[in-house]
Amino acid sequence: MFKIRNIITISDYVTIINIIFGMLAILLHDFRFIYISIVFDALDGVVARKTNTVSDFGAELDSICDVVSFGVAPAYLIYHYFDSTVVLIASMVFLIAGALRLARFGILDVKNFIGLPIPAAALFLCVVTETFLKYGIASNYSVSFFAIFSGILMISDIDYIKYPKKPFLAIFGLSIVLSLINITEPLFLCAILYVLYGIFNFKK
Amino acid sequence: MFKIRNIITISDYVTIINIIFGMLAILLHDFRFIYISIVFDALDGVVARKTNTVSDFGAELDSICDVVSFGVAPAYLIYHYFDSTVVLIASMVFLIAGALRLARFGILDVKNFIGLPIPAAALFLCVVTETFLKYGIASNYSVSFFAIFSGILMISDIDYIKYPKKPFLAIFGLSIVLSLINITEPLFLCAILYVLYGIFNFKK
Repeated sequence: MFKIRNIITISDYVTIINIIFGMLAILLHDFRFIYISIVFDALDGVVARKTNTVSDFGAELDSICDVVSFGVAPAYLIYHYFDSTVVLIASMVFLIAGALRLARFGILDVKNFIGLPIPAAALFLCVVTETFLKYGIASNYSVSFFAIFSGILMISDIDYIKYPKKPFLAIFGLSIVLSLINITEPLFLCAILYVLYGIFNFKK
Repeated sequence: MFKIRNIITISDYVTIINIIFGMLAILLHDFRFIYISIVFDALDGVVARKTNTVSDFGAELDSICDVVSFGVAPAYLIYHYFDSTVVLIASMVFLIAGALRLARFGILDVKNFIGLPIPAAALFLCVVTETFLKYGIASNYSVSFFAIFSGILMISDIDYIKYPKKPFLAIFGLSIVLSLINITEPLFLCAILYVLYGIFNFKK
């Protein structure tokens, strides 16, 4: 009656935790759940490789959960906080670009990422918005600009490194933790640096 | 700079219209956009076959857009209209079951659907909720029941026919149109009949 149980592995449960936090971000209107989703999104790949449970089903599920946590959730939240037509259009652009990015990633087999990965785009958009809100400099237009800008980066051909070096990962992890208690500045810097890194390293 | 243009086909644009309406349902809190998404979801398959543009990219994009329009949108809307913890849990169950259903569909190659298809589950949940609201008989518990019930059907092994016969399609199309002007009863009947059809035809 429920044969699907036979194909779900331990790493798929980690992916499900990712979508749960993504949906919580939407239902409870809180950017911070998206940062937690990013951690579980990184973990599911690690768990899949360590437990030898990499599967086509897992890859499919991953893309499906990523569009919720990193596509719909940021797009929804910016519209929730800046209820205007221009932000509605920008959030659509972000979501569509994210969906295209995920579908392309699903059919390519590459060493590096082509185009800004959707979790990074979500992180960038969310942390910039949160930080701008904190300093009272956020507006419909600035948020729309960052949504469209990160959307364009996702569907671009710019190369992004897949696995940052360990010291950077430690700084990034700490920045995520700090962002949960509303200290968003370190995460803001990490996101900006990663986005710019790809742009300035891009050849042709 | 944007090589992704080379892989996007005409049917993928139809899929993008599906996700746009799904996101509008979320942002503007309106079930009816989900019904329009269902029409475009059916159309993209037809267009892909007619124009010979069936592709792995298109299939990936389709799953990614479906989880937004038929997973997140209904789950979000029931929580929006029935803001309670039990509905929050039920909407999570619905979304997770939908994500699992889509990931399984993505790796199977079958003539019939195994498990209630996610657009049908979304239609069922939305039209039952809308109709119950209209008659003043909706409650946190009834909505949660239908969300969990349709979630379980999605991950079950129950067979559902893929292409209903033409007369039924015409009735269904008309019911969709009527639901847009708030006459939800015919669509309510279609949804209930399709859901029950699978259950009563199920062997073992």
